[in-house]
Amino acid sequence: MPYTNPNLARTRASAVVEAKKWLEGVTFPPDRPLVNVSQAAPAAPPPRALREAIAEAALHDDAAHLYGPVLGLPELRAALAAQIAEIYGGAVTPGQIAITSGCNEAFAAAIATLAGPGDEVILPCPWYFNHQMWLDMSGIATVPLATGPELLPAPAAAERLITARTRAIVLVTPNNPGGVEYPADLVMAFYRLAKAHGIALIVDETYRDFDSRPAPAHALFQQQEWDETFIHLYSFSKAYRLTGHRVGALATSPARMLEVEKYLDTVTICPSQIGQRAALWGMENLGQWLAGERAEILARRGLIEEGFADLPGWRLRGAGAYFAYVEHPFAGEDAAALCRRMVREIGVLALPGTMFMPEGDPQAARQIRIAFANIDAGGIATLFERLRRLGPAR
Amino acid sequence: MPYTNPNLARTRASAVVEAKKWLEGVTFPPDRPLVNVSQAAPAAPPPRALREAIAEAALHDDAAHLYGPVLGLPELRAALAAQIAEIYGGAVTPGQIAITSGCNEAFAAAIATLAGPGDEVILPCPWYFNHQMWLDMSGIATVPLATGPELLPAPAAAERLITARTRAIVLVTPNNPGGVEYPADLVMAFYRLAKAHGIALIVDETYRDFDSRPAPAHALFQQQEWDETFIHLYSFSKAYRLTGHRVGALATSPARMLEVEKYLDTVTICPSQIGQRAALWGMENLGQWLAGERAEILARRGLIEEGFADLPGWRLRGAGAYFAYVEHPFAGEDAAALCRRMVREIGVLALPGTMFMPEGDPQAARQIRIAFANIDAGGIATLFERLRRLGPAR
Repeated sequence: MPYTNPNLARTRASAVVEAKKWLEGVTFPPDRPLVNVSQAAPAAPPPRALREAIAEAALHDDAAHLYGPVLGLPELRAALAAQIAEIYGGAVTPGQIAITSGCNEAFAAAIATLAGPGDEVILPCPWYFNHQMWLDMSGIATVPLATGPELLPAPAAAERLITARTRAIVLVTPNNPGGVEYPADLVMAFYRLAKAHGIALIVDETYRDFDSRPAPAHALFQQQEWDETFIHLYSFSKAYRLTGHRVGALATSPARMLEVEKYLDTVTICPSQIGQRAALWGMENLGQWLAGERAEILARRGLIEEGFADLPGWRLRGAGAYFAYVEHPFAGEDAAALCRRMVREIGVLALPGTMFMPEGDPQAARQIRIAFANIDAGGIATLFERLRRLGPAR
Repeated sequence: MPYTNPNLARTRASAVVEAKKWLEGVTFPPDRPLVNVSQAAPAAPPPRALREAIAEAALHDDAAHLYGPVLGLPELRAALAAQIAEIYGGAVTPGQIAITSGCNEAFAAAIATLAGPGDEVILPCPWYFNHQMWLDMSGIATVPLATGPELLPAPAAAERLITARTRAIVLVTPNNPGGVEYPADLVMAFYRLAKAHGIALIVDETYRDFDSRPAPAHALFQQQEWDETFIHLYSFSKAYRLTGHRVGALATSPARMLEVEKYLDTVTICPSQIGQRAALWGMENLGQWLAGERAEILARRGLIEEGFADLPGWRLRGAGAYFAYVEHPFAGEDAAALCRRMVREIGVLALPGTMFMPEGDPQAARQIRIAFANIDAGGIATLFERLRRLGPAR
């Protein structure tokens, strides 16, 4: 190959793509199918009524096939602004909302407005791998922020990492991969820290709809001029099972939105029109259904917590959203090697902590992410039966 | 706003977004509606049978709503590889094809693999504005390559611009905005130039399906190891009227594809699953229909050529694909000012040459792009009636 951009060349390969390769050449007998807990994705399609709404749009709404506004369908921007104001309190206008081609693109756009080559962005670790990949390929330095035993980052530790080149701190709550739900006052402390230093606080709330707490996850939208500091990211993919449609969102100031618009126009022109109509229909009609989905995910989380409490040697570090983040009992065996062995020996595909941590971090070798939302109660029972059979490497 | 990435801040706003603002506050009476020739987009939705296929997938194909492979549906990659081999001759495998969220993302991904901050990419001008925007926001220097009276770039002139930091030359054929179809031997001369200098040749063939020539547009796919030098870009949007679904493609070497995969995974995870199914259905079923579409576009091009030949003072520089690129007769009036005046005085929205050229280029002030594919024969007649009434600025 003639030449490769060194920023991209040194970016690690995607965790999900890498892990799929581990399945090559391994056969899973019909009575012991693969338990795939590697990717955070609903395993079932949207409910029938939403699929019918999509089909209806495809047949009868001409605009569903043609270019639309760069920043998204006005009706969807307005609906999300109203929903955010209702859930979190505070004032949000449609002009502060952009619809994106998935929440990854929302992150990429937000970072593109904030930081360039040589700048720094602080990520608590374990981190969401695509966030770190985007920083790497953009030539932006990832500054890892270690978290404590509860997987919570400390504002004081973050403050010590801030330099003149720091442009943003990124939080993910409920956390991917850690599962942990950040307390509202912790999120607020990070907001104050970012504001005091004139940097941005990006909060990725992809798993917002599965937060176990009845109260709002934070009060940032209630702050005066929140949009000068806080950038909110959201995804419609998990709530309405629309992962294949690529619809996410971000909220920021109208001034920054002009920069976001340049980015989105250049990279994808507009989000999928069918996908946006699906998201809007979901928001307008699936509130009750989504409440049931949340209850189901929380029930699965309960099973996960019970299961690990009963599983000798394993330790649950965090559970929430779609994820359990655990420590395995096989001292001396690297998590990446163990996850490959789990595919072969017990037919379970999970991602090792090494995919979510700086290279060489000793903690990562003991950690594994389990995306339990993919499997129902029966699947979770099967998962624990298999983990119980897993012995040390021979 | 606390801080903005200077690379993005200095990127110009999107031409299409800017031009839409010119419509604000202008009313168009029912008997004189706006003639919008600003954006290259089919004005009508896909044919009924394709919309039915999309609805069918929405209802009955669960996978149409869920994450799919980063590089696209295997069936679509295989179909495009086979079609390219058939159209251009030569050998292309599915592993050399990636499906992207539109052709803009294909360009962004290709460049991301090739160049980083401080590198240089050569663009013939007038250029496609989103190409130039992506280079700007990536911190890559755009090196403009002037074209002659026929809007064709010269390999010898390009060679003089190559430095140690040059990573690629980008061609668009049929050209946006110029309309001109690059002769096959010219494309081959650029391929040889790129190969000799160890740089990439990106050829954006979004408008491939509307090329007027019966012979293949070039022989690059027939070259030994074409994929070491040549990167081909394509869009399904124009052929099957799927602009709102965001489905494009690129072809490159398997080695570079690993880098493309990192980029696509990080930015959009996968292309729209419904959109990919629509593109595949179109390829499999709409060959005859597309031939009719091409004939219609070529007929419109004929009307455009006749119309400008009859229009005093106006000069047609290029016509093809969806575009006419013209010089206006109002010496001393900047094209950007003229295009705004055209909205108010004759109800026509077109884009000025200044949006496709380096800032301050004196030629740009005389140039206008007319995206005629948006309007039928009646619309083209209306366009010329109105242009005929347009006088000098008062």
